[in-house]
Amino acid sequence: MKAEIIAVGTELLLGQIANTNAQFLSQKLAEVGIGVYYHTVVGDNADRLYRLIEEAFTRSDLIIFSGGLGPTKDDLTKETVAQAVHRPLVHDETALERIVAYFDRRGVKMTENNRKQALVVEGSKVLPNDHGMAPGMAIEYKGKYLMMLPGPPRELYPMFTTYGLPYLLSLISDQYVVHSKVLRFFGIGESALEEELIDLIDGQSNPTIAPLAKEGEVTIRLTAKAKSITEAEEMIRVIEQEIEERVGEFIYGYDDDLLESVLVRKLTEQNETVAFAESITGGLVSHMVTSVPGSSAILKGSIVCYTNDVKHHLLAVPKDVLAEAGAVSEEAARVLAEEVRLRLGSTYGVSITGEAGPTASEDKPVGLVYIGATDGTQTQVKTFRLSGQRTAIQSRAAKHAIFTMLERIKKGGF
Amino acid sequence: MKAEIIAVGTELLLGQIANTNAQFLSQKLAEVGIGVYYHTVVGDNADRLYRLIEEAFTRSDLIIFSGGLGPTKDDLTKETVAQAVHRPLVHDETALERIVAYFDRRGVKMTENNRKQALVVEGSKVLPNDHGMAPGMAIEYKGKYLMMLPGPPRELYPMFTTYGLPYLLSLISDQYVVHSKVLRFFGIGESALEEELIDLIDGQSNPTIAPLAKEGEVTIRLTAKAKSITEAEEMIRVIEQEIEERVGEFIYGYDDDLLESVLVRKLTEQNETVAFAESITGGLVSHMVTSVPGSSAILKGSIVCYTNDVKHHLLAVPKDVLAEAGAVSEEAARVLAEEVRLRLGSTYGVSITGEAGPTASEDKPVGLVYIGATDGTQTQVKTFRLSGQRTAIQSRAAKHAIFTMLERIKKGGF
Repeated sequence: MKAEIIAVGTELLLGQIANTNAQFLSQKLAEVGIGVYYHTVVGDNADRLYRLIEEAFTRSDLIIFSGGLGPTKDDLTKETVAQAVHRPLVHDETALERIVAYFDRRGVKMTENNRKQALVVEGSKVLPNDHGMAPGMAIEYKGKYLMMLPGPPRELYPMFTTYGLPYLLSLISDQYVVHSKVLRFFGIGESALEEELIDLIDGQSNPTIAPLAKEGEVTIRLTAKAKSITEAEEMIRVIEQEIEERVGEFIYGYDDDLLESVLVRKLTEQNETVAFAESITGGLVSHMVTSVPGSSAILKGSIVCYTNDVKHHLLAVPKDVLAEAGAVSEEAARVLAEEVRLRLGSTYGVSITGEAGPTASEDKPVGLVYIGATDGTQTQVKTFRLSGQRTAIQSRAAKHAIFTMLERIKKGGF
Repeated sequence: MKAEIIAVGTELLLGQIANTNAQFLSQKLAEVGIGVYYHTVVGDNADRLYRLIEEAFTRSDLIIFSGGLGPTKDDLTKETVAQAVHRPLVHDETALERIVAYFDRRGVKMTENNRKQALVVEGSKVLPNDHGMAPGMAIEYKGKYLMMLPGPPRELYPMFTTYGLPYLLSLISDQYVVHSKVLRFFGIGESALEEELIDLIDGQSNPTIAPLAKEGEVTIRLTAKAKSITEAEEMIRVIEQEIEERVGEFIYGYDDDLLESVLVRKLTEQNETVAFAESITGGLVSHMVTSVPGSSAILKGSIVCYTNDVKHHLLAVPKDVLAEAGAVSEEAARVLAEEVRLRLGSTYGVSITGEAGPTASEDKPVGLVYIGATDGTQTQVKTFRLSGQRTAIQSRAAKHAIFTMLERIKKGGF
């Protein structure tokens, strides 16, 4: 089944919002194996929308519309689709009752134009709106399927998940399910990862193996099509095991995991704590960790030691280290990690010092970063040469710092 | 001039990313009065892209492409556009030099497929890529304009702003210029701001006055159309003065200013420094400030005092304050601000303590936040009740902390 998504709304063409509805619908359709071939955005204009529907009929089996179902005269998706499928609009009693009830609940008088929202294309399957007023619709027309969904994401997402997707699955229910699992990697680039797995990637069509690079991380989505969830999971397990044997050391999590959420989970499990001495990252590592609910159990605190003054006075980096090796040095990273652990009384201490640019303040190249980590027995300092703009360097350094801790926890030592 | 935007990339159709490039380009084009009538996303498929270009020729004067300019065989925008405008691809020496230099800088050997990135459509104006390898192109063909931009936003945004937009402006320079200025507000909601300015907003068509709310801040874009930049600036100045008289206390900056960049600029001008004691914000304030180049001159450092332990040992909050009033209290905020200033030796000390949720750890409601600020002579503590999810509360608290400092600097006292 070839699908396309048409979003209707001038606010999209003005750039006031991004077309996140198309992203959401595409993800959901990909998960069940329905291929999306086009996204289109068109303004609140009946002629242009009509022309687009005609074009879509020539190339797609399923056309999903978002937006333009509301009460104002700008909302014309329903009217235009009705015209394209040569059917009238009729009042839907259930939809009208829901709209009346919606106004009653809010204690507001319903204005006449809201009745328009209860109009549906004759013969369509009505998709209830549990989070707003305008109902959705699904229509079959000459072997094509059309689905109309409301524009606001908080209405569209649940309507599609609860009513739209099950309807589509009933159309394509030729005995299979589609199931996905995402493996999350850090510390290895996309091309290096692909090289390690190229025979698997080239050889497999079910499960499919789809790598994606994003902000210094790489993910691989494994998607299996099978007769049951259990069978799909088993197919994924086999290929996952093969991947793990080759590049398992770089896997830090699965599905919606983040480096920082995995760190919070692992340290919580082990009843351990951490403290950070942040120079180049200026608080970013702590911010990432404290974005995770429950992080107060594992983060003792941190010191943002942005100046040499603070490195010396609060974290006891000797003046001669700062003067000779400099603040961006292996020696400084070592002392910072050890001292922040001692002063904050945590299980682990981690330090991040480096040169973020745009101009170097010591005699060091922009992108040079030292990450120190200690468990009180052993201290390790790793050296990185990161590229990119200031904020990209800071972000990568922060991720490396967290990944360093994850490696330490996995191995049980440095 | 009728414009449309075509994004090329299967990752968009899979829903792995949202089409934020189209949003960005639409905003920029709207600002200079170029109307965008369609966004389309198509996968890495030459036939479908070619058909789309043919369709675009029938309805648009300007077609902007994003994506598909890279080195792999999936990248086929250039080849397809070349075919559509019946011109060959030729090597561009400058582009090749830039690519070779890019690899040299990183000390990596250039692979052969990267040469492909230096191919450009014959007769096109090459748009340099200051943040990556693939150059962009602008082409004139039978009265139509085509522009190709790279897919990664960190390459596309600056390329379009620096090279693409000026080129387009040179095409439409029919006696008028369009000039914008953005006023940035904090501490006032969008509806309250609109109420103060409703007569201006309703009465004005040139300059236009467009408010926009985003992440706890509100901006107003003033856009004037005039015969010259000077005239446009003067028209904006008049309306800006009127706005300033009414709600000037909430204006913290202009155009691309951020709260944190204004703080770095003001403190640098005054040769003053600040230190933060971050509890609820967990490092976010320091991270925001240290994202700004030059922040090392004004940020002494910070202490992320996430636990009561750290608040007591590193920042001398008395145990009875923590036990009685609690860590989320006016008293704690006061001590934290004063102590972080003393211990880090800065001009100002700022503290942020509060309850981010999802569950409250003391007997305090989620969203309750205290911000303390001191200049060594006076100390002020402000109380906030913020709403939203954990990260939204943290983000708003961080912005309030920085805005508190900006108010202090403006007034010269608390």
